[in-house]
Amino acid sequence: MNKHNIQLDHKGRLRHFLTIEGLKRELLTDILDTAESFTSVTERTVKKVPLLRGKTIVNLFFEASTRTRTTFELAAKRLSADVLNINASISATTKGETLLDTLHNLEAMHCDMFVIRHPNSGAAHFIAQHAAPHVSIINAGDGSHAHPTQAMLDMFTIRRHKGAFHKLCVAIVGDVLHSRVARSQIHALSTLGVREIRVIAPRTLVPAAAETLGVHVYHDLREGLRDVDVVIMLRLQYERMRGASLPSEHEYYQLFGLTEDKLALARPDAIIMHPGPINRGVEIDSAVADGPRSVILQQVAHGTAVRMAIMSRAMQHEGAASAGEAPS
Amino acid sequence: MNKHNIQLDHKGRLRHFLTIEGLKRELLTDILDTAESFTSVTERTVKKVPLLRGKTIVNLFFEASTRTRTTFELAAKRLSADVLNINASISATTKGETLLDTLHNLEAMHCDMFVIRHPNSGAAHFIAQHAAPHVSIINAGDGSHAHPTQAMLDMFTIRRHKGAFHKLCVAIVGDVLHSRVARSQIHALSTLGVREIRVIAPRTLVPAAAETLGVHVYHDLREGLRDVDVVIMLRLQYERMRGASLPSEHEYYQLFGLTEDKLALARPDAIIMHPGPINRGVEIDSAVADGPRSVILQQVAHGTAVRMAIMSRAMQHEGAASAGEAPS
Amino acid sequence: MNKHNIQLDHKGRLRHFLTIEGLKRELLTDILDTAESFTSVTERTVKKVPLLRGKTIVNLFFEASTRTRTTFELAAKRLSADVLNINASISATTKGETLLDTLHNLEAMHCDMFVIRHPNSGAAHFIAQHAAPHVSIINAGDGSHAHPTQAMLDMFTIRRHKGAFHKLCVAIVGDVLHSRVARSQIHALSTLGVREIRVIAPRTLVPAAAETLGVHVYHDLREGLRDVDVVIMLRLQYERMRGASLPSEHEYYQLFGLTEDKLALARPDAIIMHPGPINRGVEIDSAVADGPRSVILQQVAHGTAVRMAIMSRAMQHEGAASAGEAPS
Repeated sequence: MNKHNIQLDHKGRLRHFLTIEGLKRELLTDILDTAESFTSVTERTVKKVPLLRGKTIVNLFFEASTRTRTTFELAAKRLSADVLNINASISATTKGETLLDTLHNLEAMHCDMFVIRHPNSGAAHFIAQHAAPHVSIINAGDGSHAHPTQAMLDMFTIRRHKGAFHKLCVAIVGDVLHSRVARSQIHALSTLGVREIRVIAPRTLVPAAAETLGVHVYHDLREGLRDVDVVIMLRLQYERMRGASLPSEHEYYQLFGLTEDKLALARPDAIIMHPGPINRGVEIDSAVADGPRSVILQQVAHGTAVRMAIMSRAMQHEGAASAGEAPS
Repeated sequence: MNKHNIQLDHKGRLRHFLTIEGLKRELLTDILDTAESFTSVTERTVKKVPLLRGKTIVNLFFEASTRTRTTFELAAKRLSADVLNINASISATTKGETLLDTLHNLEAMHCDMFVIRHPNSGAAHFIAQHAAPHVSIINAGDGSHAHPTQAMLDMFTIRRHKGAFHKLCVAIVGDVLHSRVARSQIHALSTLGVREIRVIAPRTLVPAAAETLGVHVYHDLREGLRDVDVVIMLRLQYERMRGASLPSEHEYYQLFGLTEDKLALARPDAIIMHPGPINRGVEIDSAVADGPRSVILQQVAHGTAVRMAIMSRAMQHEGAASAGEAPS
Repeated sequence: MNKHNIQLDHKGRLRHFLTIEGLKRELLTDILDTAESFTSVTERTVKKVPLLRGKTIVNLFFEASTRTRTTFELAAKRLSADVLNINASISATTKGETLLDTLHNLEAMHCDMFVIRHPNSGAAHFIAQHAAPHVSIINAGDGSHAHPTQAMLDMFTIRRHKGAFHKLCVAIVGDVLHSRVARSQIHALSTLGVREIRVIAPRTLVPAAAETLGVHVYHDLREGLRDVDVVIMLRLQYERMRGASLPSEHEYYQLFGLTEDKLALARPDAIIMHPGPINRGVEIDSAVADGPRSVILQQVAHGTAVRMAIMSRAMQHEGAASAGEAPS
């Protein structure tokens, strides 16, 4: 990797967290280990640590998502940072200001970190390329490109339940083609060295480059679930169905909805994951979602600790340490 | 009371605050006494106490109310808690997530208390029935059922001005049928042992069970106000008027609007209360609302201290004390 | 000045900050000096001072402006105050509550400072006239009347770059007629004693009383820019153009848009300012806005320190110092 990775500072430390692609296994493992230490913080009576006291973190959301915004707000507050929530679609940009003007204005106010959610793939990268030296960018989901913090909390959940990655066979089920979550999960699983990654999806919802990513593609759920250790269900995005790329919701459930009888084909100790929010009776049966092998709520629980780990790690980059980078 | 009250933990301490009904006089009095101590906090220069530092309180509002949300947010911040504001009607539920999925997700994030506002009667109870052991639920108004924190700040205001409850005659005036505030006030006044509770309302706006609640019903304002110590005006809900259950706004004011000449029939030292926001010239004349006997703004002022008392008491329940109740 | 200035307490200290008009040079200079000391705070790693800990500051916005709200929220948080954001247009007032009822309710909750944004000129004054003794009002923009905190951060930026005011010639360019920013800037520049203030605008966009304010009016941009030290561009408000008081956007740019060739007429070390958000290619060319003489982002950077200075000064007034002013 001669080309410098924009996500790292010159000493190779994390600065931005935009995508799993290009990050080394050691760095991912360090995040998981750091998250482990924060897990106890979120469970004790006083759930705060003073790590980011006096820092300002901006949730800059160009796409409404109370759920995702809440997880980042909680993580930031538990690190003792000040948090600003900006719903950008209904504010500055309506006055014709450009995306970069919005960024540079908030930088000038000495904000330290921007958590970006944007409907366009690549938006977080674009912002990171133009960010001031003291600023860190966290990608909270950009178009159908990446959702790396979600992938990391999924890895954390898998490691907690299954231990070493190299023995595992993991299946990702659903609309992989449009899923930023799936894309980030595949990169993370691959970097962490799982034995086998499977993608189970209708022919129309598999990315063209799937095989080159080193995954095995299945179009039959029963076949694909055979002997897997981890089943990751994806959320069916209703808005994608309008493109006629999918049969009816009912037919989808028949073919790709996870039910107890289909799950019987996986390993007996397989765990079931889902990034949420779940569509009960569409991609997953309630009996499975709420059943003993579901770790869906644990994913949510781990999300806070994992995001605390990523945010605190990113705030230790070179530029952040020295003050006075902003215009004066 | 053999049946266990869901609002109390196994040692009889407050855990949820859903309704006044079923709570004992000692518990209500303890809340009022605790609020008394917080009154000085809200009046000093640094208005914070560290009681709930590191706790996360979620304002989960399924019905927009900046006013009510603000009072709870202030109370929580003055207890040093972290606060998340979630307007649920425009977030998770639009993605088809169920109410319980929303609850369980926030619980998994180790939130400690949920302040619930919901248009459906019974929503706060429903949520409390399904809440994790470490979680407390506060009802901030559910349909036409209950608004217990409002009733408690009303009791606090009455006690501050009138002392002992057992000597008092209290009149509640207006649309009692649809009022969650009135329902909670009647239970609180009754539990605290006032001498007489009167309900003054048009025939169409008196609940069928009024008499069984131990109240005296009047349909004439002048008659009902005679010799009362406390007059509680209710807000006229315009949305209710469309049901043709009421005459015109003007006619309502003639019959049930509180004016100085009607007020002359009450005791000379009677106080006037209103939960706000007031409709000037509809249920109350401005001269009365802003007059010397009005304690309407004092109700607001006491609201912070009373909510601090309820929130801090509820956070001392059994499950809250021990950490690690959440999924891991 | 025999008539008491509502902005000052009885000892002449700042209490409200509503308009620059009527404030003495010493007071403005004191604010600039205080802001100087806060500049270092916003640039260090822990950007907080405990000056307003335990105080509650309410952003009460009757006009949506994420940008302005954000700057005040940041300033308040860096002073360690608690902040409530209230978008008043979509809350209390929709229930028919009057503006003063909203004010008095928030006062009763022991809020200490209100930052008011309102579409009507004079709204902040009106609120200040009715505010309780313990409360301070900051005008964050009222109609086309005043935007005094913006003017002060502009003065701060000018002083940082140009030193003494008395030598300077400052030009304000654009829709001065409708600009609350321009009005406050003219009062500030005049009070601080600049040598010359110029207004450069189409005939239809110059206030009738311009000459009486002591400014020189130009209708030709090239002529007006000659030898100026500071160029302040105003934002073109599209909504004003509908009134047919302006030619097309393109024609406006030809005549009054700031380009490098027109700027060549100003002094070689002239600085370019703009309150933001900028309309690129309408009132200013991108080459100028992003060029070496632009201090537009520094204005934003200084905004936090200047607002911290104004807020902390206003909280030292007589009523604020003593507790217990609120109803009890």
